[in-house]
Amino acid sequence: MPIIVQKYGGTSVGSVERIKNVAKRIINTKKAGNQVVVIVSAMGHTTDELVSLLGQITNNPTPREYDMLLSTGEQVSAALLASAIIEMGHDAVSLTGGQAGVITEDIPSKARIKDVKFDRMKKELSKGRIIIITGFQGIDSKGDITTIGRGGSDTSAVVIAAALKADVCEIYTDVDGIYTTDPRMVPQARKLDRISHEEMLEMASVGAGVMHPRSIECGKIYGIDIHVRSSMNNNPGTLITSIKDKKGREKMEKSGLVTGIAFDNNVAKIGVLQVPDKPGIASTIFNALAKEKISVDMIVQSIHGGNVADLSFTMSRSDLKKAKDLIDSLAKKMGASGVVSDSSVSKISLIGVGMVGAPGVAAKMFDTLAGNNINMHMISTSEIRISCVIDEKLVKKAVQVLHEAFDLA
Amino acid sequence: MPIIVQKYGGTSVGSVERIKNVAKRIINTKKAGNQVVVIVSAMGHTTDELVSLLGQITNNPTPREYDMLLSTGEQVSAALLASAIIEMGHDAVSLTGGQAGVITEDIPSKARIKDVKFDRMKKELSKGRIIIITGFQGIDSKGDITTIGRGGSDTSAVVIAAALKADVCEIYTDVDGIYTTDPRMVPQARKLDRISHEEMLEMASVGAGVMHPRSIECGKIYGIDIHVRSSMNNNPGTLITSIKDKKGREKMEKSGLVTGIAFDNNVAKIGVLQVPDKPGIASTIFNALAKEKISVDMIVQSIHGGNVADLSFTMSRSDLKKAKDLIDSLAKKMGASGVVSDSSVSKISLIGVGMVGAPGVAAKMFDTLAGNNINMHMISTSEIRISCVIDEKLVKKAVQVLHEAFDLA
Repeated sequence: MPIIVQKYGGTSVGSVERIKNVAKRIINTKKAGNQVVVIVSAMGHTTDELVSLLGQITNNPTPREYDMLLSTGEQVSAALLASAIIEMGHDAVSLTGGQAGVITEDIPSKARIKDVKFDRMKKELSKGRIIIITGFQGIDSKGDITTIGRGGSDTSAVVIAAALKADVCEIYTDVDGIYTTDPRMVPQARKLDRISHEEMLEMASVGAGVMHPRSIECGKIYGIDIHVRSSMNNNPGTLITSIKDKKGREKMEKSGLVTGIAFDNNVAKIGVLQVPDKPGIASTIFNALAKEKISVDMIVQSIHGGNVADLSFTMSRSDLKKAKDLIDSLAKKMGASGVVSDSSVSKISLIGVGMVGAPGVAAKMFDTLAGNNINMHMISTSEIRISCVIDEKLVKKAVQVLHEAFDLA
Repeated sequence: MPIIVQKYGGTSVGSVERIKNVAKRIINTKKAGNQVVVIVSAMGHTTDELVSLLGQITNNPTPREYDMLLSTGEQVSAALLASAIIEMGHDAVSLTGGQAGVITEDIPSKARIKDVKFDRMKKELSKGRIIIITGFQGIDSKGDITTIGRGGSDTSAVVIAAALKADVCEIYTDVDGIYTTDPRMVPQARKLDRISHEEMLEMASVGAGVMHPRSIECGKIYGIDIHVRSSMNNNPGTLITSIKDKKGREKMEKSGLVTGIAFDNNVAKIGVLQVPDKPGIASTIFNALAKEKISVDMIVQSIHGGNVADLSFTMSRSDLKKAKDLIDSLAKKMGASGVVSDSSVSKISLIGVGMVGAPGVAAKMFDTLAGNNINMHMISTSEIRISCVIDEKLVKKAVQVLHEAFDLA
């Protein structure tokens, strides 16, 4: 019998009524002839309320007690959801992460899942039960409750799906699926039927934010098909799947060169001007930034002429001040002519597996932007992505013209 | 270093401010040179709120999911209390019942504690940590969370105190201790410094309700001194202790014959009149009641003369109708002349280890009641208790005159 793993977020179980609706959906999946394992988040604002309660006691909670407290949120929704299913006449059991066998590192609040011991889950499934598991948590080697940090419940779902060799992992959310770009910006944006893990990773990490990149990464590693769909209707959503099948053959049609357009407004840029071009310069700068735990995204180095180079890079806006102070002092020592920074830029990216070896795409992108008087500050490319840094105020226009130019509607 | 186990009820941890106060009290106990293990209930009305949420989903929850849900209440208060202690600069760790090694029967919602595996607690204590344990819960052999039913947190505290061979188990509550009788009924009621487990059991089970009889029974079996005191002040409360010390010597002074007066208004009475007096009559009646799970308290049989007997017994008022229907049909078969019942009676009890072999006490009790025109319907005695059934409307007067007659003020 096929195994389906479903994950419901906090909004989907935000009230008693919604819990009952989710219960019906789960029962329908079961009745359709599947074994069903459900991962559930805490109800609506429960987690925020617990955090606020803790905030009245300490500004500096230990990660361990934080986990002990927050994990109760999912436990409540799991017990209620299981009870709703039982009330509707079907057998169900709720399990904490620990009971489900989700074993994590001994690092409270940001543990990674090390292993899933699926004996208990298999036993419950063999009894014909629907299993409801608390998302976002596991236990460590000491038996302590750990939470697994950002994107937690999505990651729980994908990892559990992998352990059970599930046929699909369905992520229920409040959107209908993954779109060619943000529909709030381009009303013509089209819902994608399929997208590869790789493309979705690029879409997610550059700001299309439906799922946390970490869970998609897990899906990619274990080859798990992830179906992102709405808990409010029965429409099919978007299937995040492998480019290649298990025998290594291309699985997806390359229907177009470009699958989607992502953008990220949380970008700041620093440029180090006219650095004497000798070995070790980049290494000095990026080691210094890493030491301060500043994550750098795009890096572009260009020869300025005359044995000097310009070096530019981007980071989150919240890191800009710290980075700027650090680079200012380094630049002097290195003999650079100056440092410039800009916190009102954005990154816009074309994404698509079809781009590989299709140089025409980049040219068309640059043409389109230039033709609309949109200046590019930086460019970087990967096999399946071309990103440009542009002025933040031009993002909307850029997304619209590119969406049209690449015929994504 | 002495080990002190403290238990704080839901009212004591009912708000962030109260949690902070409890944290200070715990730290003071630690600073006084003790190892401290704390058992904590859910905050204020949390449990009721969770029950109400579940009630919106099902009228018939499974005990397992009920436990999964309700156990989160204590987990929240334990994590918050541990965080408050840490914030005040002392090392603390919260543990679920399961983490603390509280092993129960595989009977959700009313499991009894089978064992306490204290390795983790000992390890945490050896690190100098204060331990905060969720009351009312443990885990069963399958690793499922179980709650242990009524009087749960008190029982958790006493059992954990026994496992750790603690010096004392302090039960913090919203009263100052155990009184000679209910102060709301007799303003002159006096707080007792000490009371034996046996006396307290009689006080509790006949209605003096500060602690659940089950926890006192555990204290008696394991010889644990239980100090019942207020979480609102530093006054000593009442020590519930053994009559005899570990060498079997009488430990407590018999300061008076009577220690306290208890009463119970949840009493109903049935009388079976003029039953032919032959063997097997009582057995037939009480087996039939037991089969219907009706708990009988007092039983009195009196010879009526002429080979017939009257048989009277008491039970909870909620069981009266069921019992009456059953007895009505039985009485006919047995040839009894009739069945009478009364649901407006109460039981009043004099309690004291000093009563043993002091027949004057009973006589004085009967004299005092008779002298105040209070009629006794039934009488029963144990080694440390004399109970009478009287009209409910005369209870207050009876308690007052007996409190005075036995000089308890």
